[in-house]
Amino acid sequence: MSHYDVLCIGNAIVDIIARAEDDFLRENGIIRGAMNLIDMERAELLYERMGPAVETSGGSAGNTAAGVASLGGSAAFFGKVADDGLGRIYRHDIRAQGVAFDTPELTGTPPTARSMIFVTPDGERSMNTYLGACVELGPEDVEEDKAAGSKVTYFEGYLWDPPRAKTAIRDTAKIAHAHGNEVAMSLSDPFCVDRYRDEFLDLMRSGTVDIVFANEDEAKSLYQTADLETAREALAKDCKIAIVTRSEKGSMIINGGGAHTRIEADPVDKLVDTTGAGDLYAAGFLYGYTAGMDMGNCGRLGSLAAGIVIQQIGPRPQVSLRQAAIDAGLIRG
Amino acid sequence: MSHYDVLCIGNAIVDIIARAEDDFLRENGIIRGAMNLIDMERAELLYERMGPAVETSGGSAGNTAAGVASLGGSAAFFGKVADDGLGRIYRHDIRAQGVAFDTPELTGTPPTARSMIFVTPDGERSMNTYLGACVELGPEDVEEDKAAGSKVTYFEGYLWDPPRAKTAIRDTAKIAHAHGNEVAMSLSDPFCVDRYRDEFLDLMRSGTVDIVFANEDEAKSLYQTADLETAREALAKDCKIAIVTRSEKGSMIINGGGAHTRIEADPVDKLVDTTGAGDLYAAGFLYGYTAGMDMGNCGRLGSLAAGIVIQQIGPRPQVSLRQAAIDAGLIRG
Repeated sequence: MSHYDVLCIGNAIVDIIARAEDDFLRENGIIRGAMNLIDMERAELLYERMGPAVETSGGSAGNTAAGVASLGGSAAFFGKVADDGLGRIYRHDIRAQGVAFDTPELTGTPPTARSMIFVTPDGERSMNTYLGACVELGPEDVEEDKAAGSKVTYFEGYLWDPPRAKTAIRDTAKIAHAHGNEVAMSLSDPFCVDRYRDEFLDLMRSGTVDIVFANEDEAKSLYQTADLETAREALAKDCKIAIVTRSEKGSMIINGGGAHTRIEADPVDKLVDTTGAGDLYAAGFLYGYTAGMDMGNCGRLGSLAAGIVIQQIGPRPQVSLRQAAIDAGLIRG
Repeated sequence: MSHYDVLCIGNAIVDIIARAEDDFLRENGIIRGAMNLIDMERAELLYERMGPAVETSGGSAGNTAAGVASLGGSAAFFGKVADDGLGRIYRHDIRAQGVAFDTPELTGTPPTARSMIFVTPDGERSMNTYLGACVELGPEDVEEDKAAGSKVTYFEGYLWDPPRAKTAIRDTAKIAHAHGNEVAMSLSDPFCVDRYRDEFLDLMRSGTVDIVFANEDEAKSLYQTADLETAREALAKDCKIAIVTRSEKGSMIINGGGAHTRIEADPVDKLVDTTGAGDLYAAGFLYGYTAGMDMGNCGRLGSLAAGIVIQQIGPRPQVSLRQAAIDAGLIRG
């Protein structure tokens, strides 16, 4: 059996990132700060209108896998790319980061997924995702030995958008739990929560998911409340551990018992691009968690990784997170 | 007739950029700080060994065209891409920056050029370029109206590597001069100068080229001297205007008459990646030159643009150079 700290499952997406003004978002009907799902026709149109761009591998759970590996943890990934140029870039980048990635690639169409990300002057990113080959991820892509041998299996809520991935998730979770491992998920996006609220709540309440990552808006959306305290109390009932991230206000780790730990956000010199902030927080937390650290240090590793990724363009860390964590005294060199 | 400030001609290349240690360069026989020409087989091998990367349009003269446009100048570009994924990225990015780019794309093989760029901890970049479709740029790609209507035609010395581009250059220069315009070139790289020294000197001495951009190493390589002063005096004889860039030591603008102007380098908070420094210096200088500014301000615009591009990953400016130049008081808003 293979052994990994974290197995991540997610949409395998190449990001195409450009700066844009707020007017551009309005004129093009892009929901600000959200993940907008688009079809190929709209993808062509938006690319036509997009400024000069930079390409980098992305995708929420893939970013988390890369972050865990950058911290020195062992990570694996399930996700579907096609056998095309963007697919090759995706596969290269995640493997070059040291992540085990063996999902068979899709031959022919649809092509590898891409997300056109517009970064406004405030650093906020608005994503426009064409899912492409991701719609083909299914239960046949579950590698049993990785599911059985990973301390935590982590998946993104976005996987409820493609049609067959949810079956792969449920199968993987079953194998993980049968081997005494844990399952974590990210709520991904408040609109995503709105699309799949009942199913997400069922995943938590049925014990399919043990650990939930949400930002403030997602937590409020899940319980349809404007009050964070209400959401916090509900999360404490519905899962073993919940982590609520709050941008510059830091984060809050909630144990099922009701106790919670507050973590400060890391200081940021210059906010460049928020893409990947939540993904890298999860990476830091899960690295610490699978290494047996206490909640405070797990959260501090999350804040560190998120703080680094928002000071660069793109969601994959361009520096060694391990070195940064050593420099910050959070792990031993 | 179309009218442009600057027409740039160069190899149309997509950059694949990753960080690497100095040991990696040594182990893989990569000449540090240079442009290493590679074939497809070595490109595959190096990509296999390369870390997680970021993709962005590059290519020396293409970067200069993008820089001129970012400053608010009008720019055109001749260069050859193939009808593939990387070619589409290249075409998108340069057009999205506002550069007129109409060179017909190559159908079929070879594919669009790519350069694997390894950035070491000191910010120095070592390039490994597979020329691909660039070898097909030829005299049939000279658009007469653009050559006739551009105040300055600027090309990269690298164009002596592909077999047929030099004929396109000579044809373009002839048209430019027939219409009272000027021709500029970059010496590109000390090894490139070593490969084509006699031809480059002939371009200058025959009056095919009026303005020459070189860094210190290239200028010394051209005249096979270790003494910058000797190179400076020779440049003053061989061309109308020569610009020698000297990294943190600033730059020197040499008029044919022998007078020269010294320009300081712009202050840099954090050197990230030197890719594109010379290209963007040329962009700033040529923007100022074609706007009729004096030599001092041309050089200051060059330093500003170069100083900005070395504080980011990749050679295409990710901020508006025009806004930066306005903020610096170098151009009026």
